[in-house]
Amino acid sequence: MAKSSLKSSSNVENAKFRVAKEAANLVKDGMIVGLGSGTTANLFIDELGRRVAEEELSVFGIPTSFESRMLAIQYGIPLVSLDEYGEIDIAIDGADEVDKKSLCLIKGGGGCHTLEKIIDYCAKEFVVMVDENKIVDSLGDKTPVPLEVLPIAYSTVLNELLKRNAAPSIRMADRKMGPVITDNGNMIIDVFIDLKNPEETEKELNSIPGVVENGIFTKVDKILVGSPKKVKILSK
Amino acid sequence: MAKSSLKSSSNVENAKFRVAKEAANLVKDGMIVGLGSGTTANLFIDELGRRVAEEELSVFGIPTSFESRMLAIQYGIPLVSLDEYGEIDIAIDGADEVDKKSLCLIKGGGGCHTLEKIIDYCAKEFVVMVDENKIVDSLGDKTPVPLEVLPIAYSTVLNELLKRNAAPSIRMADRKMGPVITDNGNMIIDVFIDLKNPEETEKELNSIPGVVENGIFTKVDKILVGSPKKVKILSK
Amino acid sequence: MAKSSLKSSSNVENAKFRVAKEAANLVKDGMIVGLGSGTTANLFIDELGRRVAEEELSVFGIPTSFESRMLAIQYGIPLVSLDEYGEIDIAIDGADEVDKKSLCLIKGGGGCHTLEKIIDYCAKEFVVMVDENKIVDSLGDKTPVPLEVLPIAYSTVLNELLKRNAAPSIRMADRKMGPVITDNGNMIIDVFIDLKNPEETEKELNSIPGVVENGIFTKVDKILVGSPKKVKILSK
Amino acid sequence: MAKSSLKSSSNVENAKFRVAKEAANLVKDGMIVGLGSGTTANLFIDELGRRVAEEELSVFGIPTSFESRMLAIQYGIPLVSLDEYGEIDIAIDGADEVDKKSLCLIKGGGGCHTLEKIIDYCAKEFVVMVDENKIVDSLGDKTPVPLEVLPIAYSTVLNELLKRNAAPSIRMADRKMGPVITDNGNMIIDVFIDLKNPEETEKELNSIPGVVENGIFTKVDKILVGSPKKVKILSK
Repeated sequence: MAKSSLKSSSNVENAKFRVAKEAANLVKDGMIVGLGSGTTANLFIDELGRRVAEEELSVFGIPTSFESRMLAIQYGIPLVSLDEYGEIDIAIDGADEVDKKSLCLIKGGGGCHTLEKIIDYCAKEFVVMVDENKIVDSLGDKTPVPLEVLPIAYSTVLNELLKRNAAPSIRMADRKMGPVITDNGNMIIDVFIDLKNPEETEKELNSIPGVVENGIFTKVDKILVGSPKKVKILSK
Repeated sequence: MAKSSLKSSSNVENAKFRVAKEAANLVKDGMIVGLGSGTTANLFIDELGRRVAEEELSVFGIPTSFESRMLAIQYGIPLVSLDEYGEIDIAIDGADEVDKKSLCLIKGGGGCHTLEKIIDYCAKEFVVMVDENKIVDSLGDKTPVPLEVLPIAYSTVLNELLKRNAAPSIRMADRKMGPVITDNGNMIIDVFIDLKNPEETEKELNSIPGVVENGIFTKVDKILVGSPKKVKILSK
Repeated sequence: MAKSSLKSSSNVENAKFRVAKEAANLVKDGMIVGLGSGTTANLFIDELGRRVAEEELSVFGIPTSFESRMLAIQYGIPLVSLDEYGEIDIAIDGADEVDKKSLCLIKGGGGCHTLEKIIDYCAKEFVVMVDENKIVDSLGDKTPVPLEVLPIAYSTVLNELLKRNAAPSIRMADRKMGPVITDNGNMIIDVFIDLKNPEETEKELNSIPGVVENGIFTKVDKILVGSPKKVKILSK
Repeated sequence: MAKSSLKSSSNVENAKFRVAKEAANLVKDGMIVGLGSGTTANLFIDELGRRVAEEELSVFGIPTSFESRMLAIQYGIPLVSLDEYGEIDIAIDGADEVDKKSLCLIKGGGGCHTLEKIIDYCAKEFVVMVDENKIVDSLGDKTPVPLEVLPIAYSTVLNELLKRNAAPSIRMADRKMGPVITDNGNMIIDVFIDLKNPEETEKELNSIPGVVENGIFTKVDKILVGSPKKVKILSK
């Protein structure tokens, strides 16, 4: 690796760490916290665990994936389930790409956007952490929208997407044969599709029979954007 | 049972049988046929099986549930899967309630509306069979809309429905403890909700995170309405 | 109902209540408790909830089914998950039938024997509550053994059981069409099979490909047998 | 890559191709064929598809995974399901490692050993194809045994394996966050464990509550061993 790319990689790490730390500081004593998934969310869980251990912060976490569940257990954050508490105070999650103007975003590279959306959308406040490289001018040009799809419907969903001039592909696995299977037992179809109207497309994609949930998120309250030296806050 | 209700029950049976027979006659040689679920659909599968055996009709069936799958095997209808054929020629299914004017309908008393909608909506022609007692003036007054819901999200979906002034309840099982679980491994929430705009409500309900699919069907091509003496056809 | 059967029904209720109360008294402050499933287990959860509320008993529950989970939440017993704690101190569960001599038993009428066995077998102490009517001389004569079976394998498992001279049947549902589906998304095959050697049969049935778990339980530590006036303790 | 390793890689490819071709020749007109999973099985499905297309061979395939299903559809092999036919005539599958003496083997690197075993074990004849590099003196020294495990039980299964002096690890995914999930919605635990008595260990592992099926296969009828120049047949 050349020096410049090493530096850039380290800059991204710094930005992620900085934004994760800032996000962890949003958590107050007694809160029920939705624990997001992804590399930045992992740093956040780590930092929240440190606060629980060192600052005797009393919180309960609700993980958005197996991964964040395992991390939370490892870092000593006590867990509760969605059906035990009526309300989540704050959900803090990452994103794959954020639209500069609308603040709509794409999640789901990690395959757990369904549980993320279930938890993020029911929280009183939904906060997203990203490093500045994830802010884009035109949502969905480089990052496809992931759809979680019932295995029995993968072919009809593919057909339906092709009719809508989208470019779908089944996400295939590396450590097993065949397709990636989500924590809910479903397949993932990644689709490049026109995102000029994200709210409308979010609804339309969920209306295709067999689609469980898509990775367009349009109801975020606040976005923390990390750069190596500071954290900027965007909100609608 | 009083005589009059015996007669009425037998009238309903006659109407169901008549409409199932008429529907089976819509199937032509060489067709891929979506096989609906429910008491009327069972009569249809029976009659289609008779035609395959006696008239050497050559068709392939795609069942919409375990139940219709088991019946089709029993009656000797050869089966294929959705991903083996690009298109279904005709899907023939039942309904729980049909709106007189809009021809929108509610399905899912049997808990398999998700697979039904996957198959029915991708068919070139989607035909519904009902007896005349299922035609109503105001959709959803007596029959709740079933939602198939990821088990992990049952509580957030209940909360979201209550916010929308709907009356939801988890469908509980009789032959196991706890809730009814669908063939896809999910729970069912039956909800009484305003259905003045069925197309809009169909979309809105699917946009609640954790809802896999709801039992409002708005894209039917033709409805066969059976009475004891005749079959009437409704279409948009 | 005749007077005598009313009385007998009330006797059974008394016996269940008495044994559930006795079982709840086995729970000590600070314990992680496996919460069984079934009518007697429901009474136990109710009583344990009362102790938590009135006696300020501090325990964590791990439910063995959706049903016991929902009850525990309703009665205010805080819940944890299996992966948060290394060990369960005590699991207290019901049974459908108990063999007088071997103390082996059949569970699974409620369709959740897999999670019950996962939890009951890893507990430091596994206690079963029954009323005296469930003690039998010959295990499995009246109560079939339930097998949880992957849906894809139901036909091969049926064939394999028939080869072994067993009498299997698929458990069909009442509140949905088709088969009962378990909380894990699988089917249930109830089978009458020779149970002279329960330990061996427990192992053999699990070795049929597609069988997830069977309802023969052979590793119980203690059985509380309730009659209307007292509770007797059986142990190996 | 050095020349010698290129040659060796090409030798392995030749051996796989040769054995797949030989296996395809075992299939006779009219047979129901279990279609295995893995790189060698893929070559077999390709060759069987060629025979169906060019030799007008009439067979029906039953795939053992999503991957073999997709390939069979692509190569034009008509598919049926397990519950449509009482018996599979022949199942032809690959393996990860085969014990020289006992002919017992390990499968499951691809994560679909459960469906493979369901199909392979119910076939009238179960044939395995391997290249000679997969024949070992001591089964399980280099290749762990995969266990398919209900997600809810991963921690209790890990504990139980550690008690048995085995070395288990959860298989983590590459293209999603968290663990690999199987086509049945479960997790995989790969475990190094003593395999001196494979039949016994196969049974014991399936008896751990939460284990759906393990990757030890002990009921193979015939093993085709490919080398670059010939195919040798091993049978018990």
